Amino acid sequence: MADLYVALLHHPVQDKYGNVVTSSVTNIDVHDLARSCRTYGVSALYVVTPVDALRGLVRRIMRHWEQGQARDYNPTRAEALGLVRLERTLEGAEIDVERTTGRLPTLVATSARVQAGTASYGDLRARLEGDGGPYLLVLGTSWGLAEEVIERSAHVLEPLAGPTDYNHLSVRAAGAVILDRLRGTR
Amino acid sequence: MADLYVALLHHPVQDKYGNVVTSSVTNIDVHDLARSCRTYGVSALYVVTPVDALRGLVRRIMRHWEQGQARDYNPTRAEALGLVRLERTLEGAEIDVERTTGRLPTLVATSARVQAGTASYGDLRARLEGDGGPYLLVLGTSWGLAEEVIERSAHVLEPLAGPTDYNHLSVRAAGAVILDRLRGTR
Repeated sequence: MADLYVALLHHPVQDKYGNVVTSSVTNIDVHDLARSCRTYGVSALYVVTPVDALRGLVRRIMRHWEQGQARDYNPTRAEALGLVRLERTLEGAEIDVERTTGRLPTLVATSARVQAGTASYGDLRARLEGDGGPYLLVLGTSWGLAEEVIERSAHVLEPLAGPTDYNHLSVRAAGAVILDRLRGTR
Repeated sequence: MADLYVALLHHPVQDKYGNVVTSSVTNIDVHDLARSCRTYGVSALYVVTPVDALRGLVRRIMRHWEQGQARDYNPTRAEALGLVRLERTLEGAEIDVERTTGRLPTLVATSARVQAGTASYGDLRARLEGDGGPYLLVLGTSWGLAEEVIERSAHVLEPLAGPTDYNHLSVRAAGAVILDRLRGTR
């Protein structure tokens, strides 16, 4: 089984007008995605933000759950948050994966918009069951990943869809669904 | 396609010691699950709590997004929250489904614990593609649905799982994954 990593990107992402912006870190994204990553066998969750104070905030929240009463009350929370690593940039996450595995990861972008040449979940699932890798799945906050991230990714996953034309899932929900499609027990 | 409804239950649910309790309503659960329900073609999301003040709080949050500046800024949020209905009890939700569709719904419970006689996602997906229904999928907050809800449900879905033995997904993540397994475009 190939190593799978996840990056939650707060820059560069798009706002609702398509401008490239830096979004703020949402506490519950980190908790939910850490638990989803732990469930689906992800090796690490990179929380990527250039804002020093926000990386500091996440570090403080992690410490809260990893120590004392909070840890005793809910040890599974600490177990999930143990997967979280903080990086300033996506490149920093890529380098960290290389440092850990000896190879730069193959970037897999996600988007709620239909792109040319998207990869199917079945294809990527099959690759992940093989010996290749590592893979780094990149989730965008705000209105999604900036074009520059999508352009330099080796694969862009097809948008999630149900029987409607509404596709405004939260990044917490979308991240969990994508991991289930890629790694869920069938 | 059969009508599918979702109930987010705050009573009766279990705490970590297995006691039957009433959990508080988490604002972000309502937002995330409403967006997931809208994506996967759910007919209504019942937020079920016996606490009058908490139903009042949810009503106020819905009004915020359905009016004025908030609605103009993010119309897709209002579109999703339009699916939310407030009920005191699960029975109230069942009666409301009957009022709307003319038939009492088949209850489908969810659990992170392995139960006897669980239903597979494939089975329920096939039923939902048929002409039966309506179905009411019940999600538990806190440490999951109380036994009495599981016992009177016609089906209990198998626990979600990935390649690990960790299964502590948030209800926001689990709800999205379950809906994707039942209704996602393959």
